[in-house]
Amino acid sequence: MSGKKLAIIATKGSLDLAYPPFILGSTAAALGYEVQIFFTFYGLQLLKKELNLQVTSIGNPAMPMPFPVPVMLQTLPGMQSMMTRMMKNKMKKKGVVDLAELRDLCIEAEVKMIACQMTVDLFDFKRSDLLSTCEYGGAATFFEFAGEADVNLFI
Amino acid sequence: MSGKKLAIIATKGSLDLAYPPFILGSTAAALGYEVQIFFTFYGLQLLKKELNLQVTSIGNPAMPMPFPVPVMLQTLPGMQSMMTRMMKNKMKKKGVVDLAELRDLCIEAEVKMIACQMTVDLFDFKRSDLLSTCEYGGAATFFEFAGEADVNLFI
Amino acid sequence: MSGKKLAIIATKGSLDLAYPPFILGSTAAALGYEVQIFFTFYGLQLLKKELNLQVTSIGNPAMPMPFPVPVMLQTLPGMQSMMTRMMKNKMKKKGVVDLAELRDLCIEAEVKMIACQMTVDLFDFKRSDLLSTCEYGGAATFFEFAGEADVNLFI
Repeated sequence: MSGKKLAIIATKGSLDLAYPPFILGSTAAALGYEVQIFFTFYGLQLLKKELNLQVTSIGNPAMPMPFPVPVMLQTLPGMQSMMTRMMKNKMKKKGVVDLAELRDLCIEAEVKMIACQMTVDLFDFKRSDLLSTCEYGGAATFFEFAGEADVNLFI
Repeated sequence: MSGKKLAIIATKGSLDLAYPPFILGSTAAALGYEVQIFFTFYGLQLLKKELNLQVTSIGNPAMPMPFPVPVMLQTLPGMQSMMTRMMKNKMKKKGVVDLAELRDLCIEAEVKMIACQMTVDLFDFKRSDLLSTCEYGGAATFFEFAGEADVNLFI
Repeated sequence: MSGKKLAIIATKGSLDLAYPPFILGSTAAALGYEVQIFFTFYGLQLLKKELNLQVTSIGNPAMPMPFPVPVMLQTLPGMQSMMTRMMKNKMKKKGVVDLAELRDLCIEAEVKMIACQMTVDLFDFKRSDLLSTCEYGGAATFFEFAGEADVNLFI
């Protein structure tokens, strides 16, 4: 054990930005860190039992594309699902661990996951839709741990 | 007083991402933290006397919607205003404090707010449009405080 | 030398969000900090020898515009290039240092730049397209430095 602590606030819920909290969390845990992730706003999507995350190139001119696609075409029906399928296939082909498996790794490594009660209420999430292992709290809960942590990250 | 310090860089200016700096800032202040928020790039919108922030689901496939709306329809005129009104109504109904009130709470709790002079110049913001209580500085000003802080967050 | 350390994770690759890692990195280095930036996901675009970053107002209702442009018009062909040109011109006119020069400043100041090997593979980046001075590593490489750093930022 390193005796170190990592605190993460996860606020994004797209497929691409779902990876950093779980990659960083599981890696830190493997290095002996005690890890807490506080999920708030769109980050709550990462706690759903049934993950159904999407990715889009819209608003993200930095996404590598196999060929240039005009922005207007990117808004066509079905494009978001297609981009999501393409990214999932690419990850699979490249040997990137599936997101649900990565999350399971975090749970096994005792990464503590806390859902923000305020945004659970705001967005009408149901506790029964979220992981039964997650806890509930507010910003004060986050600071209890973060104030003592070695690394704090807002994702 | 906890004697702890929280440093935040606020770079986003949409209605949804305007909440984290002020929620985290006011909570930390209530817990006895000394708090500084450095507003830069789009985060400067959060310092305007008259807040006029918008929210959009475009580029954010994780936003919970009451029913699925095709991306192309989300680009129609008036949709952004409608989504903003819907989120404001939802927040009001759910008892989430209004953003301006939350910002006032931060000011009363002596959260120090610093506007990035470089982006004020870049985006032609007028000092008269920004809170009279905010100060002005650069990245070096941020590190003066952040280098000693217990928690650092880039929002 | 301050003896302090700054660790940054750079995950965004748009022109606007390319500035914070390099501004904060070069400023901290000038203040005597030892600096490491870990580039992952879209942040890898910032390591390309030939920078070709774009900016878009789509999905970012907080971007200051010279006049209101309906979202649908923002999706028209050529709009993204036009917005990129406009921001570059504005930055030049306002005396903001060019991004490539700012990156050179970081290199001269011995800011260590690490490319995430996993996302290099995932997005099929070629090492020959990236700065020859950058190193390669994974999340564990990041924590080696970040665990000892005074300031950690996820951009």
